[in-house]
Amino acid sequence: MSDDVTAGPITDEEIFTAHEGGKLGIEVTKPLADPRALAIAYTPGVAKVSLAIAQDKALAKRYTWTSRLVAVVSDGTAVLGLGDIGAAASLPVMEGKAALFKTFGGLDSIPLVLDTTNVDEIIETLVRLRPSFGAVNLEDISAPRCFELEERLIQALDCPVMHDDQHGTAIVLLAALRGANKVLSKDIADQRVVIAGAGAAGVACAKILIAAGVGDVTLLDSRGIVFPGRDGLNPIKERMAEVTNNANLRGGAAEAMRGADVFVGLSAGTVPEEVVASMAPDSIVFALSNPDPEIHPEVARRHAAIVATGRSDFPNQINNVLAFPGIFRGALDAGARRITERMKLAAADAIAAVAEDDLGPDRIVPSALDPRVAPEVAAAVARAAKEDGVA
Amino acid sequence: MSDDVTAGPITDEEIFTAHEGGKLGIEVTKPLADPRALAIAYTPGVAKVSLAIAQDKALAKRYTWTSRLVAVVSDGTAVLGLGDIGAAASLPVMEGKAALFKTFGGLDSIPLVLDTTNVDEIIETLVRLRPSFGAVNLEDISAPRCFELEERLIQALDCPVMHDDQHGTAIVLLAALRGANKVLSKDIADQRVVIAGAGAAGVACAKILIAAGVGDVTLLDSRGIVFPGRDGLNPIKERMAEVTNNANLRGGAAEAMRGADVFVGLSAGTVPEEVVASMAPDSIVFALSNPDPEIHPEVARRHAAIVATGRSDFPNQINNVLAFPGIFRGALDAGARRITERMKLAAADAIAAVAEDDLGPDRIVPSALDPRVAPEVAAAVARAAKEDGVA
Repeated sequence: MSDDVTAGPITDEEIFTAHEGGKLGIEVTKPLADPRALAIAYTPGVAKVSLAIAQDKALAKRYTWTSRLVAVVSDGTAVLGLGDIGAAASLPVMEGKAALFKTFGGLDSIPLVLDTTNVDEIIETLVRLRPSFGAVNLEDISAPRCFELEERLIQALDCPVMHDDQHGTAIVLLAALRGANKVLSKDIADQRVVIAGAGAAGVACAKILIAAGVGDVTLLDSRGIVFPGRDGLNPIKERMAEVTNNANLRGGAAEAMRGADVFVGLSAGTVPEEVVASMAPDSIVFALSNPDPEIHPEVARRHAAIVATGRSDFPNQINNVLAFPGIFRGALDAGARRITERMKLAAADAIAAVAEDDLGPDRIVPSALDPRVAPEVAAAVARAAKEDGVA
Repeated sequence: MSDDVTAGPITDEEIFTAHEGGKLGIEVTKPLADPRALAIAYTPGVAKVSLAIAQDKALAKRYTWTSRLVAVVSDGTAVLGLGDIGAAASLPVMEGKAALFKTFGGLDSIPLVLDTTNVDEIIETLVRLRPSFGAVNLEDISAPRCFELEERLIQALDCPVMHDDQHGTAIVLLAALRGANKVLSKDIADQRVVIAGAGAAGVACAKILIAAGVGDVTLLDSRGIVFPGRDGLNPIKERMAEVTNNANLRGGAAEAMRGADVFVGLSAGTVPEEVVASMAPDSIVFALSNPDPEIHPEVARRHAAIVATGRSDFPNQINNVLAFPGIFRGALDAGARRITERMKLAAADAIAAVAEDDLGPDRIVPSALDPRVAPEVAAAVARAAKEDGVA
């Protein structure tokens, strides 16, 4: 393992042993200790509760676990850095996600991995299962399918739906940029941000930065800078071409990075040292590819004022776990019908606010394990849901 | 509530209070206590496990929770005695079922309630979700759809599938009949059994009694005795007509019951005292409708040698919980691809064997809370799975 956390490298044996039997279990919150408890929780008592819900469906939120239950849904097409490994192989990741939801958000969640990659079929399946859960976290679904899937699912379901690979990453990135800007006394409105990678996370990062009032975004895919009319643009990139690249740049990474204020790497590529050196003074580098950052943070630090990665063994870890447990918790607590842009921005601000207590070039975001974050995010998201009238 | 268990009648307030927030939660079995645990259970460590499963799908059983995970599936069309109340309203019952699976079988289970009653769509949904679970318990699905659904789902999925309202009831009934026959020194091969009700449970009871070598079964539906060529037979009743009623009887309940050895009530009807009086000497009455047995057990007891009900406040409670936790546990422990007739008969024998320690006219089956039952059933079912070559 490259991610040497504590007490020496993690061995394969340690990993497989820890996964024996999986990582989740069901807990009975109302123990069936005696015949009376049984007669309340099951027949005949439960019939009263079922009848009440049959007469008023809204009571399901109150008398079932769905008010705090997130379905963690994947089709296994873009699992971690492994790509399309299928539903069964994605399940350990989804179990891990459910463990994070419980540990940081106090939420229950069930992994639902689907043996289909057809967007219509995934939507159809979740619509049929709708009474079984309270929210949907989409996970590790490949681009550009993930954009259509999330958009249509939000329309099809009357509950919070979020593709975490898009928005979780984007929210934490924005929080981190706010922290970095505070340290450097910079204003986001003056910044040009280069985003390398126009997949799920790259597009979502571009969108949230624009919503937050960034000066300009230069979006790069494998063919270079995205601009209107360029070859090889899928529909989502065409849309992004309309709202990015105010500087009207052409070319590849080198052209994009020259004079840029911020770099966001999400493409598993590499960035040469001289390209980082060509950025504006006091530049900020987010080298987020895992396990191998686009540029080693110590090399980047020679030229950039602040460097962040996705890894826990370097400073400034950009980790989605800072966002998703609190976002879903806040949305469910508020009874929100969906997750709005304002709720996402509120989550980023709440994360940034926690970091402010102890801000520095190597502390632009809170630690991934900071227990203060999720409750603050949840409260801010719930407030924003009410302001937006979706709760 | 009619089911006065202990400490006075159960109030509605007590029931609704106990259901606040539902009855289930997710437990993290491998705590994410520190960065190292996180790096093992989630990225980057989990990638090794996902990759291993991608290369050998069989490893999913070992490294995920699916090897002990039952999907408790309902469309809400035949919930308890309430009928077609819909998926959302059925969820408290399914949560209760999951609580029973955990408490008695040590199994995890997730309630999946479906907003469709179309058999094709239910099968399609579960086929898509197949990598998410290890077995399927169908629950509270109306007849005759439940027969087709179960049959086709067994074909479509490579894992244990059982409709508990059919087979759970049938298995416990057979166990109880074995207990009663032991008390009365009777042989099942000499007995004619009248089954009132040709729905899910009635048909399954008829089938298991025939498989166990019963002398004759007389099956009654709302139009009277089922026989070949009779009006109003659906396909499943037509099939049952071919293998029941060796005595070639015609008429209704009165004609069926005259001289019968055993009565099994599963139709929510009523049976007059004089009809019970017309049964053979040393008759056995299973008045299983809930909450109101077909005949009050004290009245039946004037004429029958042994009386059982579905209620916990009378002797001889016929409760599915004696069967399903052990059956699924045994099938999953053995890695069985399906649940065979031999496995069901083995379950009935195992339940009957536990009762033998303390057999009597008022103790023909173990108590529903007897902790010895599920492990015995599981062991017997796992053995039978191996004998049948499905594990």
